[in-house]
Amino acid sequence: MLSAELLSAFLEIVGPRGLITAQNQLQTYECDGLTAFREAPSAVLLPETTGQVQAILRLCTRHKVPFVARGAGTGLSGGALPTQGSIVIGFSRMTKILNVDLVNHQITVQPGVINANVTVAVAGAGFFYAPDPSSQTVCTIGGNVAENAGGAHCLKYGFTVTHVLEATVVLPSGELVTLGSKSPDAPGYDLLGVFIGSEGTLGIATEMTLRIVRKPEAIQVLLAAFPSISAAAQTVSDIIAAGLLPSAMEIMDRLAIVAAEAAVHPQYPMCDGLLIVEVDGPLAEVKLQAEQVLELCRKNGAIETRHAIDEGDRLLIWKGRKAAFAAAGRLSPNYIVQDGVIPRTTLPVVLEKIAAMANAEGLRVTNVFHAGDGNLHPIVLYRRDNPGEEERAIDLSMRILDLCVETGGSITGEHGVGREKQCSMSYMYAPADLATMQRVRRAFDPDNIANPEKLFPTPRLCGEQKRGHYVPHPVEASGIAEVF
Amino acid sequence: MLSAELLSAFLEIVGPRGLITAQNQLQTYECDGLTAFREAPSAVLLPETTGQVQAILRLCTRHKVPFVARGAGTGLSGGALPTQGSIVIGFSRMTKILNVDLVNHQITVQPGVINANVTVAVAGAGFFYAPDPSSQTVCTIGGNVAENAGGAHCLKYGFTVTHVLEATVVLPSGELVTLGSKSPDAPGYDLLGVFIGSEGTLGIATEMTLRIVRKPEAIQVLLAAFPSISAAAQTVSDIIAAGLLPSAMEIMDRLAIVAAEAAVHPQYPMCDGLLIVEVDGPLAEVKLQAEQVLELCRKNGAIETRHAIDEGDRLLIWKGRKAAFAAAGRLSPNYIVQDGVIPRTTLPVVLEKIAAMANAEGLRVTNVFHAGDGNLHPIVLYRRDNPGEEERAIDLSMRILDLCVETGGSITGEHGVGREKQCSMSYMYAPADLATMQRVRRAFDPDNIANPEKLFPTPRLCGEQKRGHYVPHPVEASGIAEVF
Repeated sequence: MLSAELLSAFLEIVGPRGLITAQNQLQTYECDGLTAFREAPSAVLLPETTGQVQAILRLCTRHKVPFVARGAGTGLSGGALPTQGSIVIGFSRMTKILNVDLVNHQITVQPGVINANVTVAVAGAGFFYAPDPSSQTVCTIGGNVAENAGGAHCLKYGFTVTHVLEATVVLPSGELVTLGSKSPDAPGYDLLGVFIGSEGTLGIATEMTLRIVRKPEAIQVLLAAFPSISAAAQTVSDIIAAGLLPSAMEIMDRLAIVAAEAAVHPQYPMCDGLLIVEVDGPLAEVKLQAEQVLELCRKNGAIETRHAIDEGDRLLIWKGRKAAFAAAGRLSPNYIVQDGVIPRTTLPVVLEKIAAMANAEGLRVTNVFHAGDGNLHPIVLYRRDNPGEEERAIDLSMRILDLCVETGGSITGEHGVGREKQCSMSYMYAPADLATMQRVRRAFDPDNIANPEKLFPTPRLCGEQKRGHYVPHPVEASGIAEVF
Repeated sequence: MLSAELLSAFLEIVGPRGLITAQNQLQTYECDGLTAFREAPSAVLLPETTGQVQAILRLCTRHKVPFVARGAGTGLSGGALPTQGSIVIGFSRMTKILNVDLVNHQITVQPGVINANVTVAVAGAGFFYAPDPSSQTVCTIGGNVAENAGGAHCLKYGFTVTHVLEATVVLPSGELVTLGSKSPDAPGYDLLGVFIGSEGTLGIATEMTLRIVRKPEAIQVLLAAFPSISAAAQTVSDIIAAGLLPSAMEIMDRLAIVAAEAAVHPQYPMCDGLLIVEVDGPLAEVKLQAEQVLELCRKNGAIETRHAIDEGDRLLIWKGRKAAFAAAGRLSPNYIVQDGVIPRTTLPVVLEKIAAMANAEGLRVTNVFHAGDGNLHPIVLYRRDNPGEEERAIDLSMRILDLCVETGGSITGEHGVGREKQCSMSYMYAPADLATMQRVRRAFDPDNIANPEKLFPTPRLCGEQKRGHYVPHPVEASGIAEVF
């Protein structure tokens, strides 16, 4: 698709090791974790420096070539899906940690640095990087920033947006700007806040300064088994209402426990609603909070409680939770993972409604989710072999998302809008709201070449529809590993 | 300046009680807390509804009339200063609390609601509104949002930006948009984050949904007297380094103590560096934290420590702190208040440098500041009657701000850029950074009528200069009361 001239200009910028054009190699880049859509890029470029990224984008602007930035490709909404004729800019060669500033609790990294490696770089000094998507052992900081990644511990520590201080960003024009500031209280517009979570539509960050957090003196994780998932959910509401702020509160239902147990044997108590609560802080505070949490668990009818006996046990408990989604393949050959948000206080009601909807449809739905944030991840299990079952599963998954929005929630908690849910944006926002976002987009990307056809509804892809419509992505049982 | 036709159209919208055109009444609106600049508006409009604000802005856009939104006029950077030919839109008739949602910890208010009244509305239910600028008994939520107001307790609770969930905003075109969301995790660009702190340059918020916070079980305020201000500052660094997070940490020097004592008799221990630390939370945690703070105070050579004996004493201690700036008038007939930020770790060094600079100039500088945030408020005292002294005081105040930026800080912590420091923006940002902000501004305000000639440097006002230049604002001793 690209002219020989343009290809040779790209080659000049990134060198032969930085340019992929062979069809079989391009296939690797034709989708991310959302496999329902596929489109091979025209070429893949792997720059090594900010200057190279600038040179690439200058050419893209001159020739109106769309570009898609890509980290590890673990995204679940098609954010890194190439569009027709686009190039992919991959960051597998920009993996340097550029600076560690322990005095000011900061670290500066390139976009290809793996999330978990940020913590590795500062753990010796007693710090960690807080946002912890379940894919943290593979996903990259560049992708985390694009998607404003969350994770189990964002309940206490906040999403990616609260942990990025400054970003060096190459605009689609190739111009270099600094968004945010390493220093406190930068005046003017908070453009860094707009950039984070903009899903690659405003430019490409090539350096990011992150806030690191001092490791707490003590961490304790508690397990409480409840006779129902709504009892577990009610406990979450009560914990927050009591003014406690655990670092994480996760809920798993019986099916999810079965799957996790089969996959990594975390020895969860078997029940209909398992609550995992982690508290951290000074030792005295942790002890106190843990007691208060346990008391609220008992008050809500917990039939069994236990805590991690040591650090190994704690990590195993988390391994089980983080593996739960991939493990859903042990329950069903096909499944759809949904990502929606509801106000935390509505958890018990919404979970009961989801169960009723699943029963009425004769399908199984299992729930594993960030309960403290009200961020649901219902998994609709089905067999594609059964005629009509996939359609019914997709329909159910869509109706669950509708329910989230109707309850005052959101179409996505942490997986992003991307290609998957772009048509649903009209369900959440009025035309004037979307038009304002689009004008801001054009302030950064006047030619609409930065990850186009994502995030916003387009007439071509979404037609005239006014309400929720999105494309759930069926997963093969052998599919994605530990990325939820 | 306005045509009779336009005036009569405005009159039709807001009625006779909502339109001010008499010259003597317009004088009230010719400046805010920054009295160094004055410009009478063409008219003042006092709308009562969002629909009226829309109608006003539609006319402003059609006739290219600049508008300036105004809350209580307590701002200190000239953010509410009229520009030539502009109208002022005042919010003294939009003071309703529209909704209180205790379940979801939210309250929805009109822009003219006074900051302290938000807490009043929810205190009975055990909640409070956290951002607490010292002017909180008079300043309005609309102004707080425009300036991203801070306050002593923002150390723990965050600035205004972390406490606004959603805003109904009238764009300069008169179009109505919703920025942010009452529900968690709204997808798309975070335009609410851009709007907050945009100093009235993007539109006017007519409804804001704020996050309210549960009142802590216990609060304790501690006073520690140090033999030097840098010992107090070092203690602040040590408290943060120990992983403690007090709700407030304020420092006052000897002169400020003298002034506060004369004004409201808070019975501060007399010393060269007074540290006020407030801790809040569950009772057990407060006790523990207070002990740890006291230990660090003693380690840093505190010569005297005490804590508030009861709630009345606690409030008096805060009254002294919040009155300290107005009380500077007891020290000197004229003074300049500066607002700058430095990385907290550089506090001891920068404070010593400021003292040395003041000594070399033969002027007195007193310091009262949000130490935990590194947000300095040096007050340069002088006598205008002494020939040349005002010029030297202005120069010193400017050099202190330079020092903040050179230390890796900012030209303003919480007072905003406004008219006062717009020319200094080029000292903090590269041309491409400012150009990107300007493009975003045009996405909201293509005609440049929303509070023009503020926030950004303009060639007319700032010329070609590349570095710091701003206009400190001398205060008459009888001037501003309790607004810092």
